[in-house]
Amino acid sequence: MTKKLMFEKPLGMRDTLPFFHNKKEHVRKNMAQVIESHGYQFMDTPLVEYHETVGKMSATHDTHLFKLLDQQGHTLVLRPDMTAPIARVAASQLKKEGFPLRLAYDGSVFRAQQSEAGKPAQFEQVGTELIGDHSSYGDAEVIALLIDSLKQTGLEEFVITVGHIGYVRSLFEELLPGDQDAVAALLSYLHRKNYVGYEKYVQSLGVSQEAKDNLNALLRLRGGEGVFEEARALSKGQAGLKAMNDLKQLYRTLQEYGVASFVQFDLNLISHMDYYTGILFEGYAPNVGALLCNGGRYDTLLPSFELNASATGFAVHVERLVEALDGASDTKKGPLCLLVDDATFKAGLQEAARLRQQGDQVVIQHIDQVADVEKFSLKFKTVREMYKEGGDR
Amino acid sequence: MTKKLMFEKPLGMRDTLPFFHNKKEHVRKNMAQVIESHGYQFMDTPLVEYHETVGKMSATHDTHLFKLLDQQGHTLVLRPDMTAPIARVAASQLKKEGFPLRLAYDGSVFRAQQSEAGKPAQFEQVGTELIGDHSSYGDAEVIALLIDSLKQTGLEEFVITVGHIGYVRSLFEELLPGDQDAVAALLSYLHRKNYVGYEKYVQSLGVSQEAKDNLNALLRLRGGEGVFEEARALSKGQAGLKAMNDLKQLYRTLQEYGVASFVQFDLNLISHMDYYTGILFEGYAPNVGALLCNGGRYDTLLPSFELNASATGFAVHVERLVEALDGASDTKKGPLCLLVDDATFKAGLQEAARLRQQGDQVVIQHIDQVADVEKFSLKFKTVREMYKEGGDR
Repeated sequence: MTKKLMFEKPLGMRDTLPFFHNKKEHVRKNMAQVIESHGYQFMDTPLVEYHETVGKMSATHDTHLFKLLDQQGHTLVLRPDMTAPIARVAASQLKKEGFPLRLAYDGSVFRAQQSEAGKPAQFEQVGTELIGDHSSYGDAEVIALLIDSLKQTGLEEFVITVGHIGYVRSLFEELLPGDQDAVAALLSYLHRKNYVGYEKYVQSLGVSQEAKDNLNALLRLRGGEGVFEEARALSKGQAGLKAMNDLKQLYRTLQEYGVASFVQFDLNLISHMDYYTGILFEGYAPNVGALLCNGGRYDTLLPSFELNASATGFAVHVERLVEALDGASDTKKGPLCLLVDDATFKAGLQEAARLRQQGDQVVIQHIDQVADVEKFSLKFKTVREMYKEGGDR
Repeated sequence: MTKKLMFEKPLGMRDTLPFFHNKKEHVRKNMAQVIESHGYQFMDTPLVEYHETVGKMSATHDTHLFKLLDQQGHTLVLRPDMTAPIARVAASQLKKEGFPLRLAYDGSVFRAQQSEAGKPAQFEQVGTELIGDHSSYGDAEVIALLIDSLKQTGLEEFVITVGHIGYVRSLFEELLPGDQDAVAALLSYLHRKNYVGYEKYVQSLGVSQEAKDNLNALLRLRGGEGVFEEARALSKGQAGLKAMNDLKQLYRTLQEYGVASFVQFDLNLISHMDYYTGILFEGYAPNVGALLCNGGRYDTLLPSFELNASATGFAVHVERLVEALDGASDTKKGPLCLLVDDATFKAGLQEAARLRQQGDQVVIQHIDQVADVEKFSLKFKTVREMYKEGGDR
């Protein structure tokens, strides 16, 4: 094996060195503390699943699944998200429990990477699933819990943008009755956040100018609760009105939770082409370009595992949250180090025990094993020299 | 997809339901607390590696590697242990740090399963690596840290059995000079703990009765520090004497650590055919048939990553430790639940916030979403009914 190969990792795979691991651990612990305080129970599922089951049912597009062939020729996937496997468990081992179920996870998920573009093939998600609560209280609980969890990590500036797929579909149905191709094209532009493409496509449609204006007006339905009235004025369809009622009720409940200041509405938000079925949301922080977290209500996944239930949940991208926190988060100081020799080893042990009792992290190191004391000392908060200089050695 | 297939997982893959997840979390937290208090730094590596690199360098036999083909035709492995990937990182990204390095991990590792025999294909290891400390102080530190970590989880009864590959090899060289086939055969019997096979094989050897008696006497070198004298009487080789000095020094240091009562010696212990190069150890608990933890000194792995360093470490099998703790570990009580309706929702929120402030885990649930109150209530420590019976609903 050449030296180059020796240190190589599969495309998109990364090591997590202690410094970054500490920051991730800070995020994990704080989020878990809030999530558990809300009575959500953490669980886990295997890292590897059959493509035929969880792979196909996940929200991840087939081309982004990390697919592998096992030695028997089965197509396996490294799990692309935790929602589909948790749905599998909820619909089998947990189906006899009293619903609603409140579940949480903290695990690695995977995406196939085809190029050296630097995207991670493995990343970590902390998230929750509220299964079997169909109400907007449920939606509000999940969003409020997301906001409280983010705040607990020390993140101060962030926005959760909330939309409703029901409103968009209702508006499109009114303005483009029966034209499924146009609807699919517009949804796709919104999904890719290509608003210029959206407007161009609207221009090309063979509908009235008023319809075109109304389609374009959708792009401006963003902001605080003021958008509710504008949205009601734009769409008169039953499904659209129901969606607006959901959002209004959601907003009221988020106010009761005391978290409404973190929430904005964006009625053209389409997080996924066909996964979410009601309220959906995305979260961003100012200094991170990519999506920090997302979620929403999904009504078709659990029935595909033969469980008749609606669910809602969120997932936070842990590495990006660490990035968003950079500077803000209180990183650990290095440990103390007691440098000992044969004569002082026992005294060093006793001192280390005493300091650990106080909550300190203490390394005890025999001086004979340290080739470069200066370099070795760099990584410690304090180094106490308990050895005899140039003694027996 | 048939219903049967829908819930299927790859062979040996298991879900971790909340009840078991809690118990694992208890083990993880307690072990991590002790490991960090000793100045070890947690890190992580990818779950997937090239077979050609980490796969081939790991201590796991090739037939037990969980091998997969990616879409470009590379052979990948799901990491079989954390020692080889950490060696890779120590020899690359961390090689400029002052040694010794103290690293720790908590991660999933994998074994290929060929049959329905019920062995897990994925399990979790918590462990440490002390890299660049060649002394028996280093060996003692790792064993003492293992013992303290196990105790911290609440495990009371366990034994760490310590051996030394140097002693066994020295004895075999004296008694079977040049007969590498016989040495390999005897090591293999010891590795498989097939002592009857060992004695039969010894009987078949064309050596003196005295040599046969001495080979068989190795099987009896088990127990407390008394075995040191017996072992010295049996082997006079330089390497054997050095190994015994290592063990004696180790024992003295473990006494200073105050953990010697958990340690026994077994001079025929062979944890692995050719991985360990000095002191090695295995840990067992009375109510778990399988190996709970193991470790030892390995001198050839880091040089194969072009880093000239010896290392020693331990790995604990988390699921088996949970099994060993069963009954002993203090499992969490379920959360509280406040069952509310529209009128009491806000009061419920306030009460939940107050209780969470005290450290309670509190679910707040709207009664309209609970189909079966009795069944739903089963999973809570307490359920407080804050809704109007048969009210607006």
